[in-house]
Amino acid sequence: MPNIMPVKGGITAPKGFKAGGINCGLKKRGRDLALIYSDVPAEAGGVFTTNKFPAAPIKISKRNLKYGSIQAILINSGNANSCTGKRGLSAANKLARATALKLGINDKSVLLASTGIIGKFLDVAKIQKSIPGLIKQLSYNGSSPAARAIMTTDTVCKEIAVRLKIGSRPVTIGAIAKGAGMLAPNLATMLVFITTDVNISKPVLNAALKESAANSFNLITIDGEMSTNDTVFILANGLAQNRKIVKRNSGFLIFQNGLDFVTRALAEMMVNDGEGVTKFIEIIVKGGRSKNDVKQAAFKIANSPLVKTALGGEDPNWGRVAASLGDSGISFTQDLVDLYFGDVKVFSKGEPVTADKKRLKNVLAGKKIRILINLNLGKYQTAVWTGDLSAEYVRINRGYGKNHRKG
Amino acid sequence: MPNIMPVKGGITAPKGFKAGGINCGLKKRGRDLALIYSDVPAEAGGVFTTNKFPAAPIKISKRNLKYGSIQAILINSGNANSCTGKRGLSAANKLARATALKLGINDKSVLLASTGIIGKFLDVAKIQKSIPGLIKQLSYNGSSPAARAIMTTDTVCKEIAVRLKIGSRPVTIGAIAKGAGMLAPNLATMLVFITTDVNISKPVLNAALKESAANSFNLITIDGEMSTNDTVFILANGLAQNRKIVKRNSGFLIFQNGLDFVTRALAEMMVNDGEGVTKFIEIIVKGGRSKNDVKQAAFKIANSPLVKTALGGEDPNWGRVAASLGDSGISFTQDLVDLYFGDVKVFSKGEPVTADKKRLKNVLAGKKIRILINLNLGKYQTAVWTGDLSAEYVRINRGYGKNHRKG
Repeated sequence: MPNIMPVKGGITAPKGFKAGGINCGLKKRGRDLALIYSDVPAEAGGVFTTNKFPAAPIKISKRNLKYGSIQAILINSGNANSCTGKRGLSAANKLARATALKLGINDKSVLLASTGIIGKFLDVAKIQKSIPGLIKQLSYNGSSPAARAIMTTDTVCKEIAVRLKIGSRPVTIGAIAKGAGMLAPNLATMLVFITTDVNISKPVLNAALKESAANSFNLITIDGEMSTNDTVFILANGLAQNRKIVKRNSGFLIFQNGLDFVTRALAEMMVNDGEGVTKFIEIIVKGGRSKNDVKQAAFKIANSPLVKTALGGEDPNWGRVAASLGDSGISFTQDLVDLYFGDVKVFSKGEPVTADKKRLKNVLAGKKIRILINLNLGKYQTAVWTGDLSAEYVRINRGYGKNHRKG
Repeated sequence: MPNIMPVKGGITAPKGFKAGGINCGLKKRGRDLALIYSDVPAEAGGVFTTNKFPAAPIKISKRNLKYGSIQAILINSGNANSCTGKRGLSAANKLARATALKLGINDKSVLLASTGIIGKFLDVAKIQKSIPGLIKQLSYNGSSPAARAIMTTDTVCKEIAVRLKIGSRPVTIGAIAKGAGMLAPNLATMLVFITTDVNISKPVLNAALKESAANSFNLITIDGEMSTNDTVFILANGLAQNRKIVKRNSGFLIFQNGLDFVTRALAEMMVNDGEGVTKFIEIIVKGGRSKNDVKQAAFKIANSPLVKTALGGEDPNWGRVAASLGDSGISFTQDLVDLYFGDVKVFSKGEPVTADKKRLKNVLAGKKIRILINLNLGKYQTAVWTGDLSAEYVRINRGYGKNHRKG
C-alpha cells in the first residue's frame, strides 16, 4: 500500500481539527479531560460496546449520532459514568449542553465518552467549570494532550496519522486511543477517536468504520473482559475537498485501506500496551467450516489463562493450546488437526511431532509469538491478537481499585 | 442431615476396598501411580470431560464401563496420555490388560485415569514394571498413599468418607480427589474416585452420580479451563448388604444425600486448593428467567479476571461485577438488578447504593466472599464457586511446564 504515508500530528493532522487536554480534578494528577473540535460540522460514525450496562455517555452519543452532524467530542477519564442510572444520564446531558453552549454550537452536535471507575456518580460541576479553560487551550497541535487525558492504566500514549491521495487531493486520517486492560472482542475498555478531512457521505463513512473495526478492534483481547464504555468515534469534516465519496468506488477503497491501516496499528499498540503484557501473541485458526467456528476457537485459545501463562513463561506446552481448542465448543476431527508454534510443527494428525527443541526455543524467545492451528476441514480462517498473562496484570488489577479504576 | 456421619479412611473406608500408591518413575519424586481395588466386582459409573480432545484413558474407561462390572482403577500422574493418538490408545490398552492380568481379573473390569503433561507419549514399560509392586502394597488402609499419588499442583491431599444408615445397615461412601488449576464447569482437570459398599443397581447408581456431579463439580471453576482428562468414577460393591436400591425410594434418597455431601465437600476442597487461591468466592445469581441464564451469568462473573483480582485485593469495586454481568450475553433489565457483596447492598434499581464502608470492608476481609445478584425477573437461581486470581496462579502456570505439567 504505497499510497499510505505516515505523518505526525495524530487527531489534529487532518485539516480543521483542534484538540486539547487538561486536568479538571477527577484524577489527582495528570490530564483527565479532553476535547476534540472540528472547525466545521462533520459527518460522524460510532461503534459501541455490546455490554448490557452501557454507560450514560454512550446513550447520549448514540442519540446525537442519529440527529445529524457532529462538531465536538468531550472525553473524561477517572470516572466511567456507568451503572449510574438516571442521575448519570442527566449528568451526561448537562455536559453535552455545557460544551455546546461554550463552543457556540448545537448541543446535539457533541459526542461524549468516559472511562474510569464504574458505579460512582460523576462530579459534573468539576467538569463544567473546566470546559471554558479547555476550549481556550484547543489547538491545531493539541493531539498529544488529548491523547494523554484519556489514558487510564495505559503506559504509552497512542497516536497515529496517515496521509492518502484520493484523486489529486491529499486526505489525512488521524487517531488517538486508550485501552490497556479489559480489551476483548466487541471493543472492550477501549476508546478510539478518529478524525479525517475526507469528503464522504455518512452511510459510506459508517460502513467503512464498521468494516475496519471488525478487522481490528474486534479481533483483539487481553483478558476476555468487555467494558461498559467502549467506543470508537470517527469524524469526517470534508475539508480535504476530494470528490465526495458516496459509494464503494476507487476513492472509497483508498480511504478504507487507510482506515484499516490506522485501526490495525492502534489495535497492535493496544495489545502491546495491554496490562502486564510482555509478549504479542497471534492466534491463527484456519481450515474451519465456518467463520464463527474459527473465531470461537481463536478467542477461546487467546483468552486461555493457561495458554497465556505458558507463552509468557516461554514454555513449549502446546498441549494447553490443544486442550483449549478441545474446550472451545466447536466440532473438529482430532486426527486432522495440525498445530504450529511459529513455523515449528508440534502436533499433526492426532499425534505429537518431535520438534527441534532449539528452533522451538527461538520461537518462544521472540517478542511476537504466532500460533497456527489448521483444522483442515474448510476454507475459513481468522487471526486474533492477544498478550501473555503476567503477575504484573494481577498486580495492576488487585491494586487498581484503590487509586483510580477503569470502566 | 443427621444421618451423615464423617468417618476416617477415605476410599478404603467402605467394606472390601483396598488402595495403594507408589512412585513408578514418571515423576522424579513422590508417588505417581495409584490403584484402587474392590474385593468383589462392583457396579460402576463415570462422568467425563466434554473436551473434544479426550485422553486415551477416558476412551478405554468409557468402553469398559459399558461392558459390565468393574474391580480396579489404575491412575497415574506425571503424564496425561492426551493428544497422543493411536499410540496413546494402545498404551492405555496395555496398562489395563497388564493390571487385569496381575490382579487375576477380567481385563474389561479395569478403569484408567491419567493426569499430567499433555502431548507426550506415556512410558508404558515404567508403569508395567511397577504394577506387581503396587498390587503387593494394596491395603485396607491405603487411601492416603493413593490420594497422594494422584496430586499434581495440589497442595492438600483430598480425602473424605461418610457413613449413612440405609434400613438397619451402615453404608459407607469414601472418596479421593485431585484438582487444583484448570477447574471449570464440566469437570476441569479434576480426578475424583468414589468408592461405596452400598448395594445398588447400575442405572440408579449412574443417575445418582450424574445428579451429584451437576450440583458440585460442574458448579466450580478456577480459571475457566477444561482439561482433556477430567474424570469422576464411582464403584459400588454391595458389601454393605442393604436391601438393593433399584429405584428412587427412601434408601436412594439417603444415599443421594450422602453422595451430595461428599461431592460438595470435595468441590469446596478443590476450590480452596485452587492454584494461588486466597479467597473462596461464591457467586449467586437469582431471579433469572431460565436455568441457563443464571448459570451463564454466574460463570461469566466467576471467570472474570477483573472480578477475581478485585476480590483478591479486597477491593469493593462492584462495577466489575456489573460490567461482567452486562457482558455475559444474557438479557436482563438494568433497572431491576440488585447487587450485594456479602449482606451489603451496593447497587439497586440501576443506581449505586451508598454502602457502609466498614461493613463492606469486613465482607471483603473474609476468607469466604459471597456475591449475590438478583435479576428480579424470574424464579431461577444458581450458585457457582470459584477462587480469586493471584500472582501465585501466574507464577505456578508460567513455570509449571518446565518441571511437571498438567492435563
